Amino acid sequence: MEEFKSGFVPKVADFEQRIRTSFSNQGVMKLIGAELVKVVPGEVEIKIPFRSDLTQQHGFLHAGIMTSVVDTACGYAAFSLMPADAEVLTVEYKVNFLAPAKGERFVARGRVLKPGRVIIVCTGEVFAIFEEEPKLVATINATMMTIEGRSGITAG
Amino acid sequence: MEEFKSGFVPKVADFEQRIRTSFSNQGVMKLIGAELVKVVPGEVEIKIPFRSDLTQQHGFLHAGIMTSVVDTACGYAAFSLMPADAEVLTVEYKVNFLAPAKGERFVARGRVLKPGRVIIVCTGEVFAIFEEEPKLVATINATMMTIEGRSGITAG
Amino acid sequence: MEEFKSGFVPKVADFEQRIRTSFSNQGVMKLIGAELVKVVPGEVEIKIPFRSDLTQQHGFLHAGIMTSVVDTACGYAAFSLMPADAEVLTVEYKVNFLAPAKGERFVARGRVLKPGRVIIVCTGEVFAIFEEEPKLVATINATMMTIEGRSGITAG
Amino acid sequence: MEEFKSGFVPKVADFEQRIRTSFSNQGVMKLIGAELVKVVPGEVEIKIPFRSDLTQQHGFLHAGIMTSVVDTACGYAAFSLMPADAEVLTVEYKVNFLAPAKGERFVARGRVLKPGRVIIVCTGEVFAIFEEEPKLVATINATMMTIEGRSGITAG
Repeated sequence: MEEFKSGFVPKVADFEQRIRTSFSNQGVMKLIGAELVKVVPGEVEIKIPFRSDLTQQHGFLHAGIMTSVVDTACGYAAFSLMPADAEVLTVEYKVNFLAPAKGERFVARGRVLKPGRVIIVCTGEVFAIFEEEPKLVATINATMMTIEGRSGITAG
Repeated sequence: MEEFKSGFVPKVADFEQRIRTSFSNQGVMKLIGAELVKVVPGEVEIKIPFRSDLTQQHGFLHAGIMTSVVDTACGYAAFSLMPADAEVLTVEYKVNFLAPAKGERFVARGRVLKPGRVIIVCTGEVFAIFEEEPKLVATINATMMTIEGRSGITAG
Repeated sequence: MEEFKSGFVPKVADFEQRIRTSFSNQGVMKLIGAELVKVVPGEVEIKIPFRSDLTQQHGFLHAGIMTSVVDTACGYAAFSLMPADAEVLTVEYKVNFLAPAKGERFVARGRVLKPGRVIIVCTGEVFAIFEEEPKLVATINATMMTIEGRSGITAG
Repeated sequence: MEEFKSGFVPKVADFEQRIRTSFSNQGVMKLIGAELVKVVPGEVEIKIPFRSDLTQQHGFLHAGIMTSVVDTACGYAAFSLMPADAEVLTVEYKVNFLAPAKGERFVARGRVLKPGRVIIVCTGEVFAIFEEEPKLVATINATMMTIEGRSGITAG
């Protein structure tokens, strides 16, 4: 199996296709207009537009929407390194909000920090892009879990 | 000011109306069909229906949507105790996912654990309701912040 | 196996003895003067005295010492429900500090919130006791993991 | 004020001396044999030796001791950027444990990620050093707070 720039070696050749198929099955990613923009072993990026129906009370992107996309990016970053019969489960995450999410669009990046057999620790960031300038607005630290041989149990 | 069952005394008489107005300004709460079901000092509950456009890849409610509603419930629980010129900011949160979010509807509850002048620590839960039986599916621990005399800076 | 008041049923009869033996092997618990005060299925309490060699720069108990005892309490709360050949591993925790840790002694309590086969989610509190009055000074949310058939790999 | 390599500009000239004085007032840092090894604006490193009286039940460094030093490193990283009359308070932290803390000595590093006026978000790592080879064993994400004009209230 080819080693990618990230240094992670995927266990299945079609990891990208598996992620794209799974992503297309996420109702909420379609609802909020999210798109996969990068899928490499151990790292995934997702972008969303600013839309007024994704806002909190002051007109900025809602913290929970930022979390939705960066959790999904982390989950697929973990999933990219899993074996063929595995599913990914979000055990927990912690998100810090560093600045108001004011932008024309947003990019969430998730990366694998520590790929264990069962537990995969990921980190990620959300950038608000305003006049082509990215600004870090949130960071995530997420614990993902590999579930083998059971389907349909994923929480996140 | 009347003391409520929660033991918390609000600083403004119209705290509920302020929360309802603010909630109605959240584009994303409308998008996902969320409704305020309880607003008392220091405690807020929000419900959302199950909908296929709010799901992750296995057809359960997406972790980020659960987070969106329970963050909002915690934020308003904190806001219910704030002075008239204040706004609420989500500093950070941590969410644990305990079971798949399989239900016909979901209720998120946020409560104030420690109401500081600047920092308000909240806890919360998400329950999945299936055949009228509630099941705990997620817990949150959130740090909220009071911002006085500045508007429009709230992250979450 | 007897069902305890906590509602949790231990998998081994001598869970308390196993915890007491393991606790006595923790060098740091001895160093800081920690004692087990309660061991029931799914719940453990540990007390420590105030000592000037356990303080931060203002003379209060150091956040890390509070964390040490409440992590240990959570770990053993999880361990109390594990099978005979298992060890407990701290995957991660999140601690909020609610008030200065000013007291004559401190009690840390850890409880199992969700006992999964692999992942056990725990919550806990640290109380500072001053003139016999307990005050909540910290809360923890911890993810523990069951490791079966391997010894010596526990992180916390 | 000189700008350091980290890009952060301290508000007081004697930030390093203030940190060294504060550190020497921490009873627990002395107890565990901790030493400051690096103090620059926005970044602090602390080392501790392996000692059998700092261990958990399997003979590795206790998670809470790792947390004590990395919390302290983060707290002083934040403190290095604060004004003269300020104190630092640990609001909360989240720690992930990535590998058993097996080493001859340990280095904890704390850095400022986002220096707000009130809230300072920090990140940090703990490395176990075995045969001169560092291994990442824990990561922290911490929220620190600036307290001005009040003394003696710091939690961590």
